[in-house]
Amino acid sequence: MTNKDARTPASVQDAQSEEAGKSIGWHKAYVEGSRPDLRVPVRQVHLTNGQSVTLYDTSGPYTDPLVDTDVRRGLSPLRENWIIARGDTEEYAGRPVRPEDDGIKHTSPRGGLRNLDAVFPGRPRQPRRGKDGKAVTQLAYARRGEITPEMEYVAIRENVSPEVVRDEIAAGRAVLPANVNHPEIEPMIIGKRFLVKVNANIGNSAVTSSIEEEVEKMTWATRWGADTVMDLSTGRNIHTTREWVLRNSPVPIGTVPLYQALEKVDGRAEELTWDIYKDTVIEQAEQGVDYMTVHAGVRLAYVPLTANRKTGIVSRGGSIMAAWCLAHHKESFLYDNFEELCEILAAYDVTYSLGDGLRPGSIADANDEAQFAELRTLGELNRIAKRFNVQTMIEGPGHIPMHKIKENIDLQQEICDEAPFYTLGPLTTDVAPAYDHITSGIGAAMIAWWGTAMLCYVTPKEHLGLPNRDDVKTGVITYKIAAHAADLAKGHPGAQEWDDALSDARFEFRWEDQFNLALDPDTAREFHDETLPAEPAKTAHFCSMCGPKFCSMKISQDIRREHGGTQAEIEDGMAQKSKEFAASGNRVYLPIAD
Amino acid sequence: MTNKDARTPASVQDAQSEEAGKSIGWHKAYVEGSRPDLRVPVRQVHLTNGQSVTLYDTSGPYTDPLVDTDVRRGLSPLRENWIIARGDTEEYAGRPVRPEDDGIKHTSPRGGLRNLDAVFPGRPRQPRRGKDGKAVTQLAYARRGEITPEMEYVAIRENVSPEVVRDEIAAGRAVLPANVNHPEIEPMIIGKRFLVKVNANIGNSAVTSSIEEEVEKMTWATRWGADTVMDLSTGRNIHTTREWVLRNSPVPIGTVPLYQALEKVDGRAEELTWDIYKDTVIEQAEQGVDYMTVHAGVRLAYVPLTANRKTGIVSRGGSIMAAWCLAHHKESFLYDNFEELCEILAAYDVTYSLGDGLRPGSIADANDEAQFAELRTLGELNRIAKRFNVQTMIEGPGHIPMHKIKENIDLQQEICDEAPFYTLGPLTTDVAPAYDHITSGIGAAMIAWWGTAMLCYVTPKEHLGLPNRDDVKTGVITYKIAAHAADLAKGHPGAQEWDDALSDARFEFRWEDQFNLALDPDTAREFHDETLPAEPAKTAHFCSMCGPKFCSMKISQDIRREHGGTQAEIEDGMAQKSKEFAASGNRVYLPIAD
Repeated sequence: MTNKDARTPASVQDAQSEEAGKSIGWHKAYVEGSRPDLRVPVRQVHLTNGQSVTLYDTSGPYTDPLVDTDVRRGLSPLRENWIIARGDTEEYAGRPVRPEDDGIKHTSPRGGLRNLDAVFPGRPRQPRRGKDGKAVTQLAYARRGEITPEMEYVAIRENVSPEVVRDEIAAGRAVLPANVNHPEIEPMIIGKRFLVKVNANIGNSAVTSSIEEEVEKMTWATRWGADTVMDLSTGRNIHTTREWVLRNSPVPIGTVPLYQALEKVDGRAEELTWDIYKDTVIEQAEQGVDYMTVHAGVRLAYVPLTANRKTGIVSRGGSIMAAWCLAHHKESFLYDNFEELCEILAAYDVTYSLGDGLRPGSIADANDEAQFAELRTLGELNRIAKRFNVQTMIEGPGHIPMHKIKENIDLQQEICDEAPFYTLGPLTTDVAPAYDHITSGIGAAMIAWWGTAMLCYVTPKEHLGLPNRDDVKTGVITYKIAAHAADLAKGHPGAQEWDDALSDARFEFRWEDQFNLALDPDTAREFHDETLPAEPAKTAHFCSMCGPKFCSMKISQDIRREHGGTQAEIEDGMAQKSKEFAASGNRVYLPIAD
Repeated sequence: MTNKDARTPASVQDAQSEEAGKSIGWHKAYVEGSRPDLRVPVRQVHLTNGQSVTLYDTSGPYTDPLVDTDVRRGLSPLRENWIIARGDTEEYAGRPVRPEDDGIKHTSPRGGLRNLDAVFPGRPRQPRRGKDGKAVTQLAYARRGEITPEMEYVAIRENVSPEVVRDEIAAGRAVLPANVNHPEIEPMIIGKRFLVKVNANIGNSAVTSSIEEEVEKMTWATRWGADTVMDLSTGRNIHTTREWVLRNSPVPIGTVPLYQALEKVDGRAEELTWDIYKDTVIEQAEQGVDYMTVHAGVRLAYVPLTANRKTGIVSRGGSIMAAWCLAHHKESFLYDNFEELCEILAAYDVTYSLGDGLRPGSIADANDEAQFAELRTLGELNRIAKRFNVQTMIEGPGHIPMHKIKENIDLQQEICDEAPFYTLGPLTTDVAPAYDHITSGIGAAMIAWWGTAMLCYVTPKEHLGLPNRDDVKTGVITYKIAAHAADLAKGHPGAQEWDDALSDARFEFRWEDQFNLALDPDTAREFHDETLPAEPAKTAHFCSMCGPKFCSMKISQDIRREHGGTQAEIEDGMAQKSKEFAASGNRVYLPIAD
């Protein structure tokens, strides 16, 4: 999104990197807010015609050559002073870190208690929470009429007034996920009134992957535009991996605490208890997780509704809770203890992402009774969360044929009082494993147009294996396309300026500008160079598709040149000819006899 | 699409390949019609549970191990007897092939006349046309109430009655492109009542590529599901390349004769004449081109409407015709001679694809007056073509943001009397060069759901370079996804059975069945093996994403197993528990105080 008015980057120390940036086509700039410690990063693209375009930037300090980042030290805690200044939180000793938090058995020789410092020695800290269990959430502040620095930050980022941000949060139509223990984030907002956001999942599993890889996947995903990252790790070292990801993440981090809780009972769902779950939530809240998926809508009574489905329950969280409910023939402990959970989340400003554990896993199961029964419960839980001042978004499916997509967002908005919808795709067909980023990118664009606030990406490996670096990038880029296509269709202010800048560059054969404005400049440049690698080709007034003689854009330009100096003159000249033509009858054929 | 009733493959000579097919998971089978020379190919997928699924097959004889193909001999002319038996066509000497047909200057030492045999010695033949210029089109037959073998063929392929096929063609709502000089094709139909089709473009250009490469691209594209192929060659050897492509193509071939005509005047648009164009159309019609893009809607009066566009005219044909109109300040020779062109096309049963030369080339230019003015002219030309019994489809854009897509198909259907719409994408944003298969796949799925009959693919190289083998495959697969997603959304009979078969295989961990049912079995298998390469993993009851403990499908299955033998029993058991629960109050929280 470009904006030449409100968001002119203005930091003095940019000068140096701006000069350097001009040679490579872009640089990281900052828009300063009402206070010097409120600086919103943007990607400033310098065009060869002297203009520049300002784009939303999720990549964090990693793309700023003036910032010295080190994964062992973590990012600078930019929100720390804002949080402290509010005076409503306090540091405390925190829950001891246990070996089993990292999936290590009690009998392991590596056993024994540690504290957070031992997990991430780079920046010693104590966890923080609301004083006396007070709700220290952006929702609480918004309702009180306060515009926090975080709200001002996202207002600048989204190019709207801070009042709009406050209103949307206060009404529950948007969330600003920002745990008081994750001061490193660059605040962002999720709501239909704002740019559509994209989440990328990372996470090691029992089968493969390491801590370093997960941190690297997070920075890689945000480099390409992921607005939030969910850490879905399930194997060893869950706690430590999460700590390293959090300390190094410029974007909000989401998790599904149930996965770790299940690890603690060796994968036996029936052994899960509210106490183990609650302890895990506190563990993660102290680390700084910004939003948590909670499958509290999977109620005992809904499980039979899935029995005749083609693909049963496909949400991991959903199937774990269903198994627990059936094993005990009792109502879900998440549903039963939801109010207590609200109190915990409110004390850290953890945002709920109410999970759709009964989402359809196939085209055949879309929009069925199990799915919508759960959705109605999510609506009920959303209201409870709001009573506790907990920010809340609602997760959505999944697998839905195109003609059933709109019903999903419409029902969700109605039942959940317009709380932000956060959908996984949806996949619009099941017949293309290895291409589910595309089957789901189609559904994602549509549902975002109709109001979904955040899209959870799907990679080409969905259903088949764990995504590698390339898959993460492909998934993020595909979903940025879906999100931006939706921003355009929603008429989001400024969204089209980006397309226009690229279209202008294309028409004027400014190849380098096309590349630098592209969602993925590297691949665009590489594809161009495959056919016409020479440097002059990048200034050529044609391209390899049609060659010089057939280039339609060249012909269009020739038309303009030959038939008048300026565009207005061409139009006048041509309009004159056209009028003459119209006067002469303007048609060649007689009316058609049917 | 599966069908266990009407389309059981029944050829006796299948037995051998069927046995062989079972070991590799699928085989090429044929469904026999009312006569022994009418055998419709299908892809028969053999599942490990003993069932089989029948899928539409575009790959031609190349995937039949019992057929010995040789590109130098071409494919067997399966329609030849049908055409001859109608008795309304005749062979004739045909236009001599000139060196300039292959882009060779008169002065070239390779000069001198040849006939078609010299171009493709493998199968001597003379061109054929309607006796006394008679309309020998499927439209003419359909209007007379005749069900041709071609119509019966597509009826079997589409799993509908031959009467439906005849009705749709007669009403102009569908086309069956089948030049009498292209007897090698396996007939197919394009219309909103039928499966959504996909076209792949191939074509050498002045910059790169060879004859062999183009033939190979054609067989490669059809192997992955291209329903038609357009040969957009613009460089040397256009005529010869086209001949080789036609003689080896099992799918209809489309062209844009204007490109070759322009070559004949050395790329100088203003030197084009009706005679040169007409001669080129006859040249291509004699070779067997099944449909031709004709930009007769680019009228002089519309050119000024493009002057203030962001990206002017982006269609090559459109810009050539605009340049011609302006150079001469005269009405388009295509528009002026449209009736004569109809007579020519009718004599060979060449189908019109009325080109949208003024389609938008950027989000900014979508749905503007230039575009819609041309569309109204296409509606007028469509009616003229129908008077001459020429089958006609209408081309559509291009670049359109999502919220403006529906207007395109609705207007086209209204203005063009429901003639089949054939759209390029549309791309839903301009910011992702290198990913325009995806930006456009989104728009393609939507517009096809709303009624577009055929989608022209876009490859990842669009706007950047010439597609290679991988790009062609990616483009075709992406568009098959869009087409099938639309078939599902339209509720096309049988479309969902394919998804259901794959979903069942997924839920039951039948990995090999998932691969064999996938649009791209090779990549699906490869992605799976990347994470879990061992053979036992392909029968494992979990996959690499979550590992054995967390597999939701496994948990779902465990639930079914542990809580009753059959699904009905589980449901009964669970329903009983659920009732007890409901009786106990069915809720945990008191009504919410707002």
